[in-house]
Amino acid sequence: MSAIEELSRSLSRLPGVGPKSALRMAYHLIKTDPEFNRELGERIVSIQEKVRPCSVCGCFTEEDPCPFCSDQTRDRSLLCIVEQPQDVVKISSSGVYNGLFHVLGGAINPLEGIGPAQLSFDSLKKRVREGQFREIIIATNPTDEGDTTALYLKGLFADSPDLKLTRLASGLPIGGELEYADKLTLARSLRNRTSFQ
Amino acid sequence: MSAIEELSRSLSRLPGVGPKSALRMAYHLIKTDPEFNRELGERIVSIQEKVRPCSVCGCFTEEDPCPFCSDQTRDRSLLCIVEQPQDVVKISSSGVYNGLFHVLGGAINPLEGIGPAQLSFDSLKKRVREGQFREIIIATNPTDEGDTTALYLKGLFADSPDLKLTRLASGLPIGGELEYADKLTLARSLRNRTSFQ
Repeated sequence: MSAIEELSRSLSRLPGVGPKSALRMAYHLIKTDPEFNRELGERIVSIQEKVRPCSVCGCFTEEDPCPFCSDQTRDRSLLCIVEQPQDVVKISSSGVYNGLFHVLGGAINPLEGIGPAQLSFDSLKKRVREGQFREIIIATNPTDEGDTTALYLKGLFADSPDLKLTRLASGLPIGGELEYADKLTLARSLRNRTSFQ
Repeated sequence: MSAIEELSRSLSRLPGVGPKSALRMAYHLIKTDPEFNRELGERIVSIQEKVRPCSVCGCFTEEDPCPFCSDQTRDRSLLCIVEQPQDVVKISSSGVYNGLFHVLGGAINPLEGIGPAQLSFDSLKKRVREGQFREIIIATNPTDEGDTTALYLKGLFADSPDLKLTRLASGLPIGGELEYADKLTLARSLRNRTSFQ
């Protein structure tokens, strides 16, 4: 295998990169400034040393505990449960949430062999038992797997009547048009319709 | 800037990679097998040492001269002129060409400051003067820049009446449908219509 083939085969294993775009990237990398290649290569090799899961919430961080967990100005009575580390960044950037996070590491998906044991439910239960949370916001994806995981979470906290469980609203995306909405989204936006004052 | 931001900024400078897919790749690289990162990083850093332009034809190669130039079974009376090194691989893989290649390194594009001086016309003239070519196949792209470059090549060899100049046929792509062909392609396929026996 030639060096170009080797490089483009590696590149094609990145998400969203097919064989054609991998080859295009490989040709690009032959012609770029060598300093760019050195920097990109070094960043790829070192990313796993620099960025690790937070030992408390599981989001990706360069300090442990992460800035969210160690920020004493955040509301420690609110806990938002998400599937992936990148969801933490996304929700935080919405600017309307100031509580803590917990990353499950995925959603329950029996077809792919992901059951409760593969996700961080144990550390979640421990955090909730030892913390002073009054509300848990379930922010799993509005997919079959996310819905299953949300139901599982509901069962997990069934014996904590004082704990308020909520879930992110699901419905039409802002700026979207009814005409292009899929049936399931439309059905859920009808079922969850809100009072309009 | 965080390590994730640094990595995804580097990745977003690859062709066809926007900020969103770069971030997705960066998150992927945090979770992959470290051996994959080490290998990909090393391949990116070393590609420019392993692969260089052939000193004769300009295509990318790990040996100099490249396998095309040093293959004595190829027809040394045919020269195919292309814009980019990857065009050599493409034409070679069609299986119907067994001559030599010459890579210009781009096409004449005054808007982007690419004139004849930036392309390898000098080494081309020298090769043609010293070689025994009887036909030159102009395989620049069927774009404005490629057409301009083809015209320039025509002028370059105007004083060599024995040298046959040809250009790749342009027209409807095989498997394409008239309904979806653009006007320019359709016009060219009409103008260049071939006799049908």
